Amino acid sequence: MQAFIFDLDGTLIDTVYAHVFAWQRALAEAGMPIDAWRIHRRIGMSGGLFTRAAARELGTEILPEQAEAIRLRHSVLFREFRPNRRPLPGAVELLKHLRAMRVPHGIATSGNRPDIDASLAALQVPPETVVVDRGSVARAKPEPDLFFACQERLGVKRDDCYVVGDAVWDLLAARRAGMLSVGLLSGGYGDDELSRAGAYRVYRDAAELHRSLDELGVVP
Amino acid sequence: MQAFIFDLDGTLIDTVYAHVFAWQRALAEAGMPIDAWRIHRRIGMSGGLFTRAAARELGTEILPEQAEAIRLRHSVLFREFRPNRRPLPGAVELLKHLRAMRVPHGIATSGNRPDIDASLAALQVPPETVVVDRGSVARAKPEPDLFFACQERLGVKRDDCYVVGDAVWDLLAARRAGMLSVGLLSGGYGDDELSRAGAYRVYRDAAELHRSLDELGVVP
Repeated sequence: MQAFIFDLDGTLIDTVYAHVFAWQRALAEAGMPIDAWRIHRRIGMSGGLFTRAAARELGTEILPEQAEAIRLRHSVLFREFRPNRRPLPGAVELLKHLRAMRVPHGIATSGNRPDIDASLAALQVPPETVVVDRGSVARAKPEPDLFFACQERLGVKRDDCYVVGDAVWDLLAARRAGMLSVGLLSGGYGDDELSRAGAYRVYRDAAELHRSLDELGVVP
Repeated sequence: MQAFIFDLDGTLIDTVYAHVFAWQRALAEAGMPIDAWRIHRRIGMSGGLFTRAAARELGTEILPEQAEAIRLRHSVLFREFRPNRRPLPGAVELLKHLRAMRVPHGIATSGNRPDIDASLAALQVPPETVVVDRGSVARAKPEPDLFFACQERLGVKRDDCYVVGDAVWDLLAARRAGMLSVGLLSGGYGDDELSRAGAYRVYRDAAELHRSLDELGVVP
């Protein structure tokens, strides 16, 4: 028996580039101009961690209330840039298939409710699906807390979990949790970046993962 | 003696993510929803090639006038998303240094005038600098025409040219031109993607390239 723990942004829903763009604008407005590609490679961490890392990179100090103001501005810009959420290819079908096959699965994201609600609706995730968000744990990725919380709520063993994510933070957190992981290119990382971060397999997107379930020892 | 031929977007100026976002929106409005990461990996081709590739991926036909309409819509959205152009770290200083050292160098881009004028102004490129744009050649990257045109105008030999770019299209076109190439991570590709596409060296950005000129056999 296997279980799946999915990341959300860039893994199931096409939001990474809108996040990059919204963070870049919010940080620039706060006097912290940062290259888009450096932001891209940090998406998936918690917003608080991310803002502090950005400030450190620029050699500036940032107060908690400034970080919070930037985080809120990012949320506003993100909704402006991406009014409708678009599921990535195969995501809706894969989740539906796992439900039909009764394969335990959940979603563990560094995003917050209510920000993620529109994404869950677009993915047609029913209310009984286990969803662990940033607010449910003390520390976000790359700490393993989100994955442990999800695994516990699924009632499965750590050894039985595959983490599925698009960012090295997912894969790093999976290693720290003692779980296997699968990388997806749909968040814009390169194949080798994900393999080197510990992904057991790398697929283009949820659709290719779906077609490859037998490679993971899961009966499709 | 060595000469440098630079790509523009993602190499000298921080515009790749705005291009991704503008293309995604323009294509979606035209009934062609495409994942952002697939667009990202196609930036640097000519707009015409890109639009046809996108249509092929979706299994639809696209008429030349439709492709042109999407291209124009992309231009409008791009200017809306990124009103001011931001040079990437070290780009202005590197170009200034090459001018001072009288190292032959030029810019060869799949972008068009007047779209690129604001980028050239932000980079403080003087009028005498060789700039070859999409309109100057019959075929854009990954064909080598842009690099040949730039090399001829610089009056240097092919063997003496380093192409500097952020996309696999730059590196592929460089190989086809028989030129060495250097990859920069500042456009959001991964290190291995650029190495495997033939980059002799990969640096984070123009600033790191500047500090590493001696690794390329160029006296700094």
